[in-house]
Amino acid sequence: MIPSAKCLLYLFLIFLRSMEKRPLILVTNDDGITARGIRHLIYLMKDLGDLIVVAPDRPQSGMGHAITVSDNIYCDPVTIDQNASWDEYSCSGTPADCVKIATQEILNRTPDLCVSGINHGSNSSINVIYSGTMSAAVEAGTNGIPAIGFSLLDYAMDADFSHTDEFILRITRSVLKNSLPKGVVLNVNIPTISDVALNGIKICRQANAHWVENFDKRQTPQGRDYYWLTGEFVDEDGGKDTDEWALKNNYVSVVPVQFDLTAYHTLKELNNWNIE
Amino acid sequence: MIPSAKCLLYLFLIFLRSMEKRPLILVTNDDGITARGIRHLIYLMKDLGDLIVVAPDRPQSGMGHAITVSDNIYCDPVTIDQNASWDEYSCSGTPADCVKIATQEILNRTPDLCVSGINHGSNSSINVIYSGTMSAAVEAGTNGIPAIGFSLLDYAMDADFSHTDEFILRITRSVLKNSLPKGVVLNVNIPTISDVALNGIKICRQANAHWVENFDKRQTPQGRDYYWLTGEFVDEDGGKDTDEWALKNNYVSVVPVQFDLTAYHTLKELNNWNIE
Repeated sequence: MIPSAKCLLYLFLIFLRSMEKRPLILVTNDDGITARGIRHLIYLMKDLGDLIVVAPDRPQSGMGHAITVSDNIYCDPVTIDQNASWDEYSCSGTPADCVKIATQEILNRTPDLCVSGINHGSNSSINVIYSGTMSAAVEAGTNGIPAIGFSLLDYAMDADFSHTDEFILRITRSVLKNSLPKGVVLNVNIPTISDVALNGIKICRQANAHWVENFDKRQTPQGRDYYWLTGEFVDEDGGKDTDEWALKNNYVSVVPVQFDLTAYHTLKELNNWNIE
Repeated sequence: MIPSAKCLLYLFLIFLRSMEKRPLILVTNDDGITARGIRHLIYLMKDLGDLIVVAPDRPQSGMGHAITVSDNIYCDPVTIDQNASWDEYSCSGTPADCVKIATQEILNRTPDLCVSGINHGSNSSINVIYSGTMSAAVEAGTNGIPAIGFSLLDYAMDADFSHTDEFILRITRSVLKNSLPKGVVLNVNIPTISDVALNGIKICRQANAHWVENFDKRQTPQGRDYYWLTGEFVDEDGGKDTDEWALKNNYVSVVPVQFDLTAYHTLKELNNWNIE
C-alpha cells in the first residue's frame, strides 16, 4: 500500500513537531513542594515544556532572599505525583538555594524559564522584598534566566486556584515568546476567586506602601516575654497605575522587578554632599 | 562673688548645648550582638547620639530580607558592655525583625537614624540582595527612617575595623545633617585594612555581577548526599562608576539603594506585548 501525499505530509508535520525543542522550565516555590499552589503550577506548566521541580521540603514564607551559608543543604529526588514524567527534588534550603542547586548542580543545561509559586498569599507592593517566592525568581534572573513569580491573594492552604489558569498560561507563553528585558523578572499577583470573572491583566508599578507592626506580646509559662509578628499593611499610594490598584479592581497585576537596586535618580544629590 | 559676664555667657552656652536634642540612633547587624563589627559601630555612634541596640542573638549572615512569620520572637534586655549608658536587646529574630521590634515595640519614638553593621564581609554589588545587614537598613527605610548599612571586606571574626572610623563618622554625620532622599538607604562597603591609607569615598552604582555556584557535594556517614554552598563572584561590569571598581581602587563605596523594585524603563516594552 502506497501512502497518499496527504498522509505523508501529515507524518512529516508530526516529525517536525517532535523535533521542536521544548523549553526547559524550572518550577519552585516557598510554600514547600507539596503545597497546593506549586502542584497547580506544575499542572499548568507541563503542557508548555519539559519540567524540573526543585522546591523546599517545608514552608519558607517570609524568607526574603535568604541563602544557606552556615549549614549544609539536602536535595533529594522525590515522587509526589505518581504519573509525573518529570523529576522532582525536595530541598532543605531556601527558595533561592533551590534555584542555585537546580541550575548549578542538578541540571546540565540552563533552564529557558523559572516559575515560582503559586504562592498562597500576596506578594504585591512592598511585600516583594519579604517574599521567598520572588527571591527564587530574582535568583534565576541574576543568572540570566527569564523568571516569573506567581502569587494568589489567598493565604489558605486549600485555596482555589482554578480561575488563575488562563492568566498564568497567557503570561508564561508571552515570556517564552518574548523573553524578558535583561535584569528584570515578573511579579504576578492574582485576586482571590469570586463570583465575578477577573477583568484582565495590568502591567503595573509597585505601590508605595509599608507595614505597621502590631506585635502580639505574650509570656511563656516560665514568665519570659515573647512576641508574634502581626501587622497592618498601609497603602500610601493613590495611583491608578499600581499593583494594589489593579488587584483591588479585580485585575491580575504584573510588575517588572529589577535587582539593580541603585537609586540612580539620587546619585547627583548625594554627590552634592561633597563627602568624597 | 558675682560671676563675670564671660562666665555667664559660658554657662548659658553649656545650657543651650544640653537642650539640643541628641539624635536617637538604632544600631543593629546580622552577625549577632556580640560580633566585633557591631561593637565597633556602637563605639563610634555613642558620640553622635543616644543609642538603642537591638540585634540578633546569633549570626544571621545571608538572611536576606527574611522575617519570622511562623515562629515567635524573643527580645531580651542584655548587658554586654558594663559601661554602657544605653539599652541593648538580644533578639531571636532576623535583622529585619530586630528593626520591626525596636521601632514598634521597644521605642516610644521613631529613631532619627538606623545603622546596621559593621558587617564582617562584603555586601557590594549583587550581594546586597542576600544581605541581612542591608535588610535591616531597608526595613528601617520602608518606615521612613534614614538608614545606612556598613560592611567591611573582611570575613574574619577578628577583623581590624580601626581604619573605618573616619569614613563611617563622615558618612553618618552627612546623613544626620542632610537626611536621605525618600525611599533610599545607603549601602557602604569599606576595603580591608592595608599598609596604604584609603583613598576616600565614592558615590557609586551597584556593579552588574552574579554568583556562579560550585556546590561542594559530600555524603553523610549513612550515605545521603548533601551540599555546601560555595561559589565564585563574577563581576561582568567594566564601569568605573561601580562599587566594585571603587573597592578595588581602595575607596569606600556608597550606593544609594531603593526598595521600589519596579523596572520603570521596561513598562512600555511590556505593555507592547498586549497581554492585557
